[in-house]
Amino acid sequence: MSEIENILNYLCPRIIEYIKEAEKPDSKVGTVHNPLELLEEARSLPFNESPQGMKGLGESTEFLLQKSVVTWSNRFMEKLYAGNNPIGVASDILLSVLNTNSHVFSASPAVTVLEKLVSQKYANMFGFNGPYAGGLTFPGGSYSNLTSMQIARSIKFPETKEEGQTMKLAVFTSEHSHYSVRKAAVMLGLGHSSVFAVKVLKNGNMDVKDLKSTIIKAKSEGYKPFYINATSGTTVYGSFDDLEAIAKVASDHNIWLHVDGSWGGNVIFSSKYGYKLAGSRLADSITVNPQKMLGVPCTCSFLLLPDTRTFVKANSLDAGYLFHHKESDMGFDLADGTMGCGRRPDAVKFFLAWQYYGTQGFARRIEHAFAMTKYLYDKVTSSPNLLIVDCEAPQCFQVCFWYANKRKLENKEKTSQQTRLIAYKMLQNSQFSLDYSTHPTEGEFFRAVLNSPTVNEALIDELVETIQQIGATTI
Amino acid sequence: MSEIENILNYLCPRIIEYIKEAEKPDSKVGTVHNPLELLEEARSLPFNESPQGMKGLGESTEFLLQKSVVTWSNRFMEKLYAGNNPIGVASDILLSVLNTNSHVFSASPAVTVLEKLVSQKYANMFGFNGPYAGGLTFPGGSYSNLTSMQIARSIKFPETKEEGQTMKLAVFTSEHSHYSVRKAAVMLGLGHSSVFAVKVLKNGNMDVKDLKSTIIKAKSEGYKPFYINATSGTTVYGSFDDLEAIAKVASDHNIWLHVDGSWGGNVIFSSKYGYKLAGSRLADSITVNPQKMLGVPCTCSFLLLPDTRTFVKANSLDAGYLFHHKESDMGFDLADGTMGCGRRPDAVKFFLAWQYYGTQGFARRIEHAFAMTKYLYDKVTSSPNLLIVDCEAPQCFQVCFWYANKRKLENKEKTSQQTRLIAYKMLQNSQFSLDYSTHPTEGEFFRAVLNSPTVNEALIDELVETIQQIGATTI
Repeated sequence: MSEIENILNYLCPRIIEYIKEAEKPDSKVGTVHNPLELLEEARSLPFNESPQGMKGLGESTEFLLQKSVVTWSNRFMEKLYAGNNPIGVASDILLSVLNTNSHVFSASPAVTVLEKLVSQKYANMFGFNGPYAGGLTFPGGSYSNLTSMQIARSIKFPETKEEGQTMKLAVFTSEHSHYSVRKAAVMLGLGHSSVFAVKVLKNGNMDVKDLKSTIIKAKSEGYKPFYINATSGTTVYGSFDDLEAIAKVASDHNIWLHVDGSWGGNVIFSSKYGYKLAGSRLADSITVNPQKMLGVPCTCSFLLLPDTRTFVKANSLDAGYLFHHKESDMGFDLADGTMGCGRRPDAVKFFLAWQYYGTQGFARRIEHAFAMTKYLYDKVTSSPNLLIVDCEAPQCFQVCFWYANKRKLENKEKTSQQTRLIAYKMLQNSQFSLDYSTHPTEGEFFRAVLNSPTVNEALIDELVETIQQIGATTI
Repeated sequence: MSEIENILNYLCPRIIEYIKEAEKPDSKVGTVHNPLELLEEARSLPFNESPQGMKGLGESTEFLLQKSVVTWSNRFMEKLYAGNNPIGVASDILLSVLNTNSHVFSASPAVTVLEKLVSQKYANMFGFNGPYAGGLTFPGGSYSNLTSMQIARSIKFPETKEEGQTMKLAVFTSEHSHYSVRKAAVMLGLGHSSVFAVKVLKNGNMDVKDLKSTIIKAKSEGYKPFYINATSGTTVYGSFDDLEAIAKVASDHNIWLHVDGSWGGNVIFSSKYGYKLAGSRLADSITVNPQKMLGVPCTCSFLLLPDTRTFVKANSLDAGYLFHHKESDMGFDLADGTMGCGRRPDAVKFFLAWQYYGTQGFARRIEHAFAMTKYLYDKVTSSPNLLIVDCEAPQCFQVCFWYANKRKLENKEKTSQQTRLIAYKMLQNSQFSLDYSTHPTEGEFFRAVLNSPTVNEALIDELVETIQQIGATTI
């Protein structure tokens, strides 16, 4: 038997068992670990000068499967992604066997054309319909956002490629936006101080009036405004900025409009909820991550542009030793449009998932999550000891709430302690993995993310009961 | 039967067949494709509104397997990586099933401690032996290099995080270094003009005398020198810069020394060839990619530091909504030290491969490749119609040579045409996948990369015969 057969014969039954276990209604989602103790445990794995072969693989497999959070379980409600799924595993296996590098066409013909194909179709969803509409994948939303800012600077001020950062450029993004926008500004040599935080309305959406006055303020301070980041689906509340209104401001001031739809952009697949992205066609660039809302394996993030020729225009250095084929001139050496080189062909995972489930399948997944979000929201607002944060109905798949006896919050410190304790107890008992976030005035609150397609009413009932029970007995 | 069983039952026999085929001595390495025709072919795959399920997966699998270059074959000598291997496939399957995101410890306990563990052991190999020595993975060498430059700026000039790029900073790197160094300078807002290209000696190693005078020149032009990139294994020739001599210069001028060992750094695993990295302990940061020389699945790149606390010091923005656990203070929320957020746990792939093969296995792989390189070099230098480029023995696993009847080169244009034609014909006949590079004066030449552990003398004989035969009959 060949080595690969040996390995698959060992691994396939083990992962099937793992997945079946994770899919049971009373599955365990993981538990709490002390990092230093877990590191010591890892140190005891067989790992030295000599080959450990199948024995080492077996021990490490058990360590990984048993000491990880089970994202495959619908009880994983902690982060803005859910577990993987069978087509996701299939796509990772295919990419692994090919081990192709999608930097130049000559090394990766099939995966390159699939990236072209799926990016174009994806861009069309957002209203980018020109002949060169499309995108590229980057290893996560932060890198997509970073690249969009670099492209914006390179296109608006082409001389910066040669001369570097010479002006005071200004970036605008809401207080609730992702930190990758600020990180990008630091990376690009703009610095923190160039990022102007625009106020949000009560529901967490960017205050467009404040955007206008902030731009005018920045100009008066000698900045050149060049980049607005609007968010479709903020990290904590899931708010969607008003893209049409923001696009108008961007156009009036000749500013690049980027949409960070890392989390919420994929509601575009639902004809019922796609309106939340109204105005996306007016953007200059859009980040959107199939790795989050759609359950494609991590990492898979797209940066979409109305005209993909802009990638090369903004980023190419003409590295002749790599990009020397005629395919490069034809736009098929994809890395030439990035600031990187080697690339894992993440787009293939999205292609295979979209093909497998169809647009209809993605739409069903999204609409189911919205239904589950409403169900939890209704439970929270009708419960005597839970309190919804800031009293607004959720705009995306996350519900933000406190445990609060008789709906009265304790002081900030105590509220935070309670929240952390309940979250800790639930994970310690392997019941639910739930995250918490800070509130400016009232203490930390739960954020439940209802992304998994196998979340159902019974599970949500159990979640609410569990929180109430722990709250009642320990607080 | 569960969905995952269905998919594995279909996929496993298919990939086993694919791998067996690729491992045969007369396997096909792929063929030449016209990008536009291939894109049209991809468009005919079933892919629309409705779910395509297993039927779609089947058709796409065949498309991917049949229209990709077979990197698994030892006839793939084109890029600085070889195909994958069984333990690589196993690691990708495990990561896929876990679908964990190694940004915070709470979501990824097991993979986080394995990254800590393997990074520390890896850093020790290069002489970083302090209590906090270690590293983090980034999605490719370019991102590792980029991050090292950002860290260098942030540590040397902490005020730039807040205020942005305010000075004329200068970067030094050899003419033969990877373009990601220049890309990083553009990204950081330094611009092209801040990158001073240091001359190379005849063997492609950085001319340290020229480095010294270039630094003095830059200073006289008003630049602040802050970053030297030394290369261990250049892209085309595989040259190793003299790290000890360069470290001396860096120290004299108080400049950050980064070592780009993306390609060649892993010779450290061989006690016979590790001397090529002598002086690495003096570096401030090192990039090294298990995805290249060691056959770990793409992408897998490490940035190693003598003190990993520097990652957070240089890059953190204190994003409270994500990094709010005590694990963060303990240095276990790994993304806090990056300019990104979500991360695929690439370190696990390296851990599993290192455990499986042991240090001994990696050493054998490297020493075999050096032996094969010498074998091809000897064949070329003793052949009447092949000519080695620049007459030096190769320093790494690539052999650079021309086809040249009676060892006389044609003019530049004709030489390039011949090289391209032979490479094209070999790929068209599915015989060998070989890349070519530009020469400043003499026209393009072949670069054969002998990375695959299954390359042997018979295959190299066949390569040389094939080139001579195509050369004799078509030129």
